[in-house]
Amino acid sequence: IIILYCICFASSIEIYKHNKEERVARTWGTTAGGLPYVEETIANAGEWLIGGDLEVLEPIKYNDGLDRFRLSPAELRKEFIKRDADAVFAFQLRNPVHNGHALLMTDTRRRLLEMGYKNPILLLNPLGGFTKADDVPLHWRMKQHEKVLEAGVLDPETTVVSIFPSPMHYAGPTEVQWHAKARINAGANFYIVGRDPAGMGHPLEKRDLYDPDHGKKVLAMAPGLERLNILPFKVAAYDKTQGKMAFFDPSRPQDFQFISGTKMRTLAKNKENPPDGFMCPGGWNVLVDYYDSLTSSDNGKIPEATAVAV
Amino acid sequence: IIILYCICFASSIEIYKHNKEERVARTWGTTAGGLPYVEETIANAGEWLIGGDLEVLEPIKYNDGLDRFRLSPAELRKEFIKRDADAVFAFQLRNPVHNGHALLMTDTRRRLLEMGYKNPILLLNPLGGFTKADDVPLHWRMKQHEKVLEAGVLDPETTVVSIFPSPMHYAGPTEVQWHAKARINAGANFYIVGRDPAGMGHPLEKRDLYDPDHGKKVLAMAPGLERLNILPFKVAAYDKTQGKMAFFDPSRPQDFQFISGTKMRTLAKNKENPPDGFMCPGGWNVLVDYYDSLTSSDNGKIPEATAVAV
Repeated sequence: IIILYCICFASSIEIYKHNKEERVARTWGTTAGGLPYVEETIANAGEWLIGGDLEVLEPIKYNDGLDRFRLSPAELRKEFIKRDADAVFAFQLRNPVHNGHALLMTDTRRRLLEMGYKNPILLLNPLGGFTKADDVPLHWRMKQHEKVLEAGVLDPETTVVSIFPSPMHYAGPTEVQWHAKARINAGANFYIVGRDPAGMGHPLEKRDLYDPDHGKKVLAMAPGLERLNILPFKVAAYDKTQGKMAFFDPSRPQDFQFISGTKMRTLAKNKENPPDGFMCPGGWNVLVDYYDSLTSSDNGKIPEATAVAV
Repeated sequence: IIILYCICFASSIEIYKHNKEERVARTWGTTAGGLPYVEETIANAGEWLIGGDLEVLEPIKYNDGLDRFRLSPAELRKEFIKRDADAVFAFQLRNPVHNGHALLMTDTRRRLLEMGYKNPILLLNPLGGFTKADDVPLHWRMKQHEKVLEAGVLDPETTVVSIFPSPMHYAGPTEVQWHAKARINAGANFYIVGRDPAGMGHPLEKRDLYDPDHGKKVLAMAPGLERLNILPFKVAAYDKTQGKMAFFDPSRPQDFQFISGTKMRTLAKNKENPPDGFMCPGGWNVLVDYYDSLTSSDNGKIPEATAVAV
């Protein structure tokens, strides 16, 4: 439940036609049915839109127990000053943190220290708005992130966890510009970007919707993002010889196992353990609990459905 | 027939996948069937594209009798220096010049003189590449432009006519940025832009494909176009009280007649005259001749088709 205490349009109100087809085509590069955010929000929206300069008089509260993690861009900038950060690197995610993600973040910090920064701070900035049905809900992800910090997989001393309140558009190269720009506003000057950021499979065809390198390319070229240093992601995978997540080494592909989101979900649903070193046990248990809670409610439904079928 | 004497890729060759759906959606803001350039060129193109830095060793000749009008951007810049221009204003068009167009151009020159420029030169830059089937072909348009200059509707002393060799994409706000940028390269510093530039009707729905004001807005905001001064078009229409094309006066709409492209074509096809003052008679006769030449070839075809049907 979102409660808006007080929002007012201060100036420059504009009302304009909502050309859904053009909006979707230009944002997603396709008008195919099955785009999650389009179906959730745009398709059912009205034929007119209103815009203007928004003045927020009081901070917005969600009252979901997570508001202390909802720092505004100004609050985040203050926090980085308080912590005496001389570099801030941001990591956008909408998934549970596994040790591959953690490797990227700790390795980025190592590289920044090598570059001469004395106190690089990580902004771990999980997305807090709409996500598609098979993504893990925010509440469970925040529990999981807490366990990851407790276990020391990420260092709480050099990490700020804050919720990024945006909905997820799954709009790839278009959306990644918003993700990056919003983090500049929050004080970040380094941005970690990986393969196919904000991407997904084509809703109708068996292929990625976007070229997996376009996100990176767009960030490097987009006007307005010059102040941001883009840190391209290396691909991490499970190294069977080391028993941990490591940067993929193309000279020995047979040693690596890619654990997809689907694979991870299937393991957690079946209460199986992933390979040792994939995720800290505390974090993994949160996922198992989440899928367990889903199964219990599924169990509650299945007899009903059966009754109807019979 | 296009004859390429010598083109070579000098450097930075890149081969990449031709994602037609994404290209069309992002360029046109729709993937609806019936977009002229998509059907003409993109739909039949291959699955891979090649790009790179092109070095042209010899000017490209079309050998169609119009090559003297194909000035390169460097040649145009030289011409403006030779003419001692202190302002260059460009007019993109793909249609015959009627007196409404001429009014915009002469009025722009008047405004530039008022602003203190001593010698503003018009770059009349008709589009020379692919146009849709119902547009008048380049060869006939060039004849028509010649008559307009002969009649003094536009002043040959302050006008440079040169063919803009681009194909027409009918991609509205996306394409207008290319149109403007290309004219900056050719030395223009003022660009006349009207209602719905490079736009057309939606191929499947009864509406304009683009918001008619978006072209202007995009030009005012697009990065890379800061050097260009955008001159928004006033709408010209036939003023029945004055018997000539004039700027539309919203206080007396009943006095004005809008003569659409369809209306103009129908009149020319039927060898009827438009209202006096719509177009110089010499120019009009070129159009009548053009449609006459079409009808003769149509006459040649109709019996054939009938024979097949019978």
